[in-house]
Amino acid sequence: MNSVCIVGTGLIGASIGLALREAGFAGAITGIDASGDELKTALEMGAIDHAARSSDEHRAAVKAADVIVLAVPVLAIQHWMRQIAADLRDDQLVTDAGSTKAEIALAAERLMPGRFLPGHPMAGKESGGAALAEGKLFRGASWLFTPLHAATPLEVEWRAWVEKFGSHTMDLPPEQHDRICAWVSHMPQFVSTAMSAMLEEEFGDSAEMRAIGGRALREMTRLGASPFSMWRDIAHSNERAIAETLLRMEQHLQHLRENLKTPELREEFAKANASRKQL
Amino acid sequence: MNSVCIVGTGLIGASIGLALREAGFAGAITGIDASGDELKTALEMGAIDHAARSSDEHRAAVKAADVIVLAVPVLAIQHWMRQIAADLRDDQLVTDAGSTKAEIALAAERLMPGRFLPGHPMAGKESGGAALAEGKLFRGASWLFTPLHAATPLEVEWRAWVEKFGSHTMDLPPEQHDRICAWVSHMPQFVSTAMSAMLEEEFGDSAEMRAIGGRALREMTRLGASPFSMWRDIAHSNERAIAETLLRMEQHLQHLRENLKTPELREEFAKANASRKQL
Repeated sequence: MNSVCIVGTGLIGASIGLALREAGFAGAITGIDASGDELKTALEMGAIDHAARSSDEHRAAVKAADVIVLAVPVLAIQHWMRQIAADLRDDQLVTDAGSTKAEIALAAERLMPGRFLPGHPMAGKESGGAALAEGKLFRGASWLFTPLHAATPLEVEWRAWVEKFGSHTMDLPPEQHDRICAWVSHMPQFVSTAMSAMLEEEFGDSAEMRAIGGRALREMTRLGASPFSMWRDIAHSNERAIAETLLRMEQHLQHLRENLKTPELREEFAKANASRKQL
Repeated sequence: MNSVCIVGTGLIGASIGLALREAGFAGAITGIDASGDELKTALEMGAIDHAARSSDEHRAAVKAADVIVLAVPVLAIQHWMRQIAADLRDDQLVTDAGSTKAEIALAAERLMPGRFLPGHPMAGKESGGAALAEGKLFRGASWLFTPLHAATPLEVEWRAWVEKFGSHTMDLPPEQHDRICAWVSHMPQFVSTAMSAMLEEEFGDSAEMRAIGGRALREMTRLGASPFSMWRDIAHSNERAIAETLLRMEQHLQHLRENLKTPELREEFAKANASRKQL
């Protein structure tokens, strides 16, 4: 791997560029982004060393790269896959950082069989943007792969870089990935969004509420700041699994609500206490 | 105020003792606790300087104190109020650190009119116990009061100590206190308990789930470790307000679930984003 093209130089894309540099990658890193500002920030912080700005430059950047990393929201990843599929060579690898994997794996089998390694770094912040990027963002985090074929030499090399970022890699089937992520990532996000929206409806900008809410409230609503643009794509591409987890959450809350004064409450706390011991 | 008796030398009670010392209180601090271990820990860390262990010692400690602080769960506070009411003198003040206030205020009017100041420090940790106590636990936190009469000199003095702990004091009626706390404290707790219990049911001790869940999951389930003993009393004494918030949460989750692919999703994220700006 001598050259990388990062499509989407926001928080994740720019952090990948910085992580590559910190891990000792000395080849070319070209960036592509719909926002000229994001591209400029990524360039200035050294996450990329060249910015491709026009359609022609995009095409040339993709053509020149050994590895193309798609670090945009899920629907945009599928858009880019359609854009680049026709010109792709056998000696190139496309990988991604998308939050859901089943739709993307399906598109990869159709558009670029044998040349796509679906990936998902379990890292992020509640706000996006290149300005918040860090080379150590992936340190200690899981980086999931849902491989579609036996690993090619370039895939082996890309995995080795990811491990140099300090991530723990793990392989699983795309559908299982999406189901687990619905539980451990998407459901908590939508619960936090619902809670934040509900408090906004109930209290608006009441100073009293803000003064009273402590650390617990801040933590439970932190994800409420997450951007719609990213989560729309996740909701769209993993609707069934997310809906299942939200329904289960509604049922658990109803059960708690109906048992605030019964011994059942003790059971829920016992289960919750046991779960926390695992984390 | 020359002497204080702290009933319940767990996290909150022992922290009050330490905070008094750090704020310069030089009088006697006697502790009472059902657990000999908690009492010993509180004594060793200097949160109290005398431990009352037998029923006779309890009675003597309460009798000798200018201010009696009830720092046990809500139902135990009401139990202690009944225990001490008969022997209470007019020159004594009883205050508490209970999480709900309407039931306690009602009991105070009946049992010790003019001598009780209901209080509620909005501070804590997900685990209790004297060993985790800190004198700075209340620094920057709200300390709510739901006064039942014009402040007596001893109440004025107690409030001054609380402010020396670094807390922001705020007065509000008991019913409003319980309603606001249902929204900003109790509802988030029960949501986190439900989420933790649900994950325990779904994944048990699966290493995969644990490896994948990141900071978001840890934060959203941190309160899952909270002890049943404390929350049973809160659920019992504020059932109606908590049930209302849980029902609203169920409705919001259902709304999200039914709109994962519609423009309504954008509205919920917009409201949630606005709410976070307030915190």
